[in-house]
Amino acid sequence: MTEAAKNVAAIRKLMEERGIDAYVIPMADFHQSEYVGEHFKAIRFVTGFTGSYATVAITKDDAGLWTDGRYFTQANTELEGSGVHLMKMFVDDTPGTVEWVAMNVPEGGKVAFDGRVLSMGDGQAYEEALAGKNVTIDYEQDLVSEVWENRPPLSEKPAFFLEEKYTGENTGHKLERVREKMAEVGATAHIVASLDDVAWLFNTRGDDIDFFPLVLAYALVTKDEAKLYIDERKLNDELRAEYEKYHIEVCPYNDIYEDAKKLGEDEVVLIDPMKMNYALYKNLNCKVVEGANPTILMKAMKNPVEIENIRKAELKDSVALTKFICWVKKNYNKEKITELTCVDKLTWFRQQQEGYIRDSFEPLQAFGPNAAMMHYSPTPETDATLEEGGMLLSDTGGGYYEGSTDITRTTILGSITPEMKKYYTAVYRAMQNLSVANFLYGNHGWSLDVLARKPIWDLNKDFQCGTGHGFGYLGSIHEPPTGFRWYIVPSKNEHHQFEEGMCITNEPGIYEEGYFGIRIENNLVTVKGEKNKYGQFMHFETLNFVPIDLDGIDPEELTKSEREWLNDYHAQCYEKLAPYMDEEELEWLKEYTRAI
Amino acid sequence: MTEAAKNVAAIRKLMEERGIDAYVIPMADFHQSEYVGEHFKAIRFVTGFTGSYATVAITKDDAGLWTDGRYFTQANTELEGSGVHLMKMFVDDTPGTVEWVAMNVPEGGKVAFDGRVLSMGDGQAYEEALAGKNVTIDYEQDLVSEVWENRPPLSEKPAFFLEEKYTGENTGHKLERVREKMAEVGATAHIVASLDDVAWLFNTRGDDIDFFPLVLAYALVTKDEAKLYIDERKLNDELRAEYEKYHIEVCPYNDIYEDAKKLGEDEVVLIDPMKMNYALYKNLNCKVVEGANPTILMKAMKNPVEIENIRKAELKDSVALTKFICWVKKNYNKEKITELTCVDKLTWFRQQQEGYIRDSFEPLQAFGPNAAMMHYSPTPETDATLEEGGMLLSDTGGGYYEGSTDITRTTILGSITPEMKKYYTAVYRAMQNLSVANFLYGNHGWSLDVLARKPIWDLNKDFQCGTGHGFGYLGSIHEPPTGFRWYIVPSKNEHHQFEEGMCITNEPGIYEEGYFGIRIENNLVTVKGEKNKYGQFMHFETLNFVPIDLDGIDPEELTKSEREWLNDYHAQCYEKLAPYMDEEELEWLKEYTRAI
Repeated sequence: MTEAAKNVAAIRKLMEERGIDAYVIPMADFHQSEYVGEHFKAIRFVTGFTGSYATVAITKDDAGLWTDGRYFTQANTELEGSGVHLMKMFVDDTPGTVEWVAMNVPEGGKVAFDGRVLSMGDGQAYEEALAGKNVTIDYEQDLVSEVWENRPPLSEKPAFFLEEKYTGENTGHKLERVREKMAEVGATAHIVASLDDVAWLFNTRGDDIDFFPLVLAYALVTKDEAKLYIDERKLNDELRAEYEKYHIEVCPYNDIYEDAKKLGEDEVVLIDPMKMNYALYKNLNCKVVEGANPTILMKAMKNPVEIENIRKAELKDSVALTKFICWVKKNYNKEKITELTCVDKLTWFRQQQEGYIRDSFEPLQAFGPNAAMMHYSPTPETDATLEEGGMLLSDTGGGYYEGSTDITRTTILGSITPEMKKYYTAVYRAMQNLSVANFLYGNHGWSLDVLARKPIWDLNKDFQCGTGHGFGYLGSIHEPPTGFRWYIVPSKNEHHQFEEGMCITNEPGIYEEGYFGIRIENNLVTVKGEKNKYGQFMHFETLNFVPIDLDGIDPEELTKSEREWLNDYHAQCYEKLAPYMDEEELEWLKEYTRAI
Repeated sequence: MTEAAKNVAAIRKLMEERGIDAYVIPMADFHQSEYVGEHFKAIRFVTGFTGSYATVAITKDDAGLWTDGRYFTQANTELEGSGVHLMKMFVDDTPGTVEWVAMNVPEGGKVAFDGRVLSMGDGQAYEEALAGKNVTIDYEQDLVSEVWENRPPLSEKPAFFLEEKYTGENTGHKLERVREKMAEVGATAHIVASLDDVAWLFNTRGDDIDFFPLVLAYALVTKDEAKLYIDERKLNDELRAEYEKYHIEVCPYNDIYEDAKKLGEDEVVLIDPMKMNYALYKNLNCKVVEGANPTILMKAMKNPVEIENIRKAELKDSVALTKFICWVKKNYNKEKITELTCVDKLTWFRQQQEGYIRDSFEPLQAFGPNAAMMHYSPTPETDATLEEGGMLLSDTGGGYYEGSTDITRTTILGSITPEMKKYYTAVYRAMQNLSVANFLYGNHGWSLDVLARKPIWDLNKDFQCGTGHGFGYLGSIHEPPTGFRWYIVPSKNEHHQFEEGMCITNEPGIYEEGYFGIRIENNLVTVKGEKNKYGQFMHFETLNFVPIDLDGIDPEELTKSEREWLNDYHAQCYEKLAPYMDEEELEWLKEYTRAI
């Protein structure tokens, strides 16, 4: 019996004792964060699945893990022997977790979860789906804690202040803008429960979850007050002084639950159903107005100071990644290099850059067939050695004081088959076609995405995930409210048209199970173009400058304008990167940025 | 004082007598038809505007006409001196009619219209918008009839039966399918009030409105009964026999209003808010379930018999249009040819084709600057003479027993400027790029449209309307529920993903006011492609075969694959059209379908 099977059995035992028919475990902390601290890695503990996106539901006889196309292959491998089967989200008629639970819980039964780790929207979805079946919802059942011996405690790491030379806007001004938005919707109070929103609003960063430099905290903003709920031991003098300047009251982390209860009947609190946990929501006795956190749109539209910083961060990161690629291509056949070696080596290159804080998300280094698992990251058990004729997919990023990056390059080792080259070229064309889009203001990700899909759909292939996502400035690496996705996923906050200053990734790919994976990803910022009688035209500017591996490109498959764009991009790469390269690297760079 | 100004004054006088603060005139009959019979041409009579899409609202001091980008130039010309000003829909912050009326009617005032020519949805929108202002809505005011001396009566023209060899499905089977859909939504009755839905359901056509071969009729379908409300004098023996076969009761046209009232409290009637007039809706006393008419999706998904027929109709139409283009290019500089000559000549070429019934919509023949008015159709006052160096935009179509077409070609007369050629080539590329789309099932018009926009947006231009629309089989030429439009217009029923058998136009353009207009339009049918682990791929097949004017194409602007596609298309044009050409035409065809 695997560890996972034992854990599921232990949860089932507790379920039986308490008359629970279905138990739901989301991959979340109390803030619906994308990455979570060690304390919150419940799904990894219970099922063994290590991907970053999943929900588990367990019934008496069955157990499912829901995840999306990025993780199908990986989940199949990791769930083996657990008795938990993969539920492929967005594929054919796979029911969603809520729908599945509603189908599998008996009339008059009981569904349970820990309401602090379930979003308000999900909690309400369960209420609605179960309404007709006379089912009880018990949202105060933390079964995982009971099963998990030595569960790690909450993080106690220090926080730090992000200066205005990086943020371009002080907290006082940000609070003013939030209060304006509150007034527009008639709210007298606003609870901010998402860590990246709190971090942006208070210009505060920390180290409480994996990768994203965020602190565990909530905020309550009223017309006259701003309360920050945070473990006080994390604060330094700089932060204390800053909070004092803007009359921000520091309160104990967990007091938000009691303070939420105290909001009187006259108060109207603005809450974001996607950004608040169900238990906190259930504590509210006041009037509620639901809407997106105003901070979401504000922080997505990077200001000129942030954009100038981001350009610096992207250049540093491009230097590190280019040096790494040069090193890999020169050495893979001279010494043993594995995926894990690559993780360390690339992080080391980034560490050499001034202002580096940490990697901006879990580094994905995947060689050969491993790269077909879209978000595979190597472990000692799976660690593959780089070999001639294969491709190394590196999807990584750095967090710097000047911003965060999220770049992918797929590096050719030696020579690849014509088929691989055809796919490599198609992926490159997909990335480029979207990058050069010139479009009228008002376009969304869903109306532009096909530009990237086209070269890949033309081969009757697809990459089964979004083509790109907004990315934060030392915040979440997947940042709402934009994304490139031709299909609209209601639960994804990607509904906003492109605004000036929005930063977004562009990362199409082709993945052949058991064979290879190709992804090429650039970072883009949205800028204004010509304004004329047709409206305001917009386009993207590419932020990063890392050569596209010419060993994978078939020039015959490129149109003239595609070839021109690539040559121009490579000329810029050479110009910008050259000053940071040593002699050997420079020679390599010259070759790999040559015009084709 | 212009006629229009006098008419507006006459309406204002009646408004004053009856205490009406705002009077609304939609461009509609009792069935929300796109074209209307002579009786219903109220906006043309009142304001002089001859376009096919508009709404007028009149207050004591002001009057506006709302129309979309196709008609801006035309409306500006035609409204001159009327005192009615153009309201540009979908441009910047132009308020919609409802919003404008709500802003301009005083507290406690009165808004009036003829509720039979206003859609239910629009009527409700007025209710909602005016709810806070204590405004009365009087929906039984037909002021236009009082002002309009000698208003033409309702059409009394004969109807005809469309045989199963054309429709591929008999009325009995269609009624069965409708009843299944009614049961799915818990409806016991269904009122069909849109002419194209009635025509499809009863395999009946007629001649009661302009261009579309439709009959004025309503239908009421229950579990066991089917009633057709139609002027009995229009029916021939064939139709009577057909109705008898499927137990269809024929009732007087206007009885629907009384029968609607009689639907008891136990009945649940399915109605389509977009396809029913407000007065009829107000007559309902039973329960209501709102939803799209089930016939909309059914008739949009053409069956194999229909598609086989449509291919025949498209070929006939391609023969006629190609002969016309050949004639224009050979003769414009030999004799005086005007836009109106072209209207007649092209209709004549179509009349030579077997099975021709009538033109499928108002023929648009626009030369030079007139073509910049997107939906300009010539009148004796505006009729332009064709000249060397200009372009003739012909957007026309034929209705045949085998189906309807809607094709645009822009014909070059002599030689055009390099700028015009650049735009011509861009428009061609736009049309082609969308035509060759290969996409996953689930795509909508809004996710594919950018393929056509791209070559035009790349020039910082736009055509300010949809790129295409579904088209009917001897029904409406703009047929829901699909369209190519990157922005979602809630009032347009274009929300459906592409299904096998859906027919749609593809008609991008570039319009330079005072200078020229270019549009190239093909007709497409949606077909299934490869099905694999990524899903069901779909693509379009081009139905019509009319050469693209090579005098407008700059081969240097085409990619290799674009050139290949064009050459292949032209090879097919030659092969399919050659048998129908005379010697002189054949020689011309050979030249204009040459490989480039």
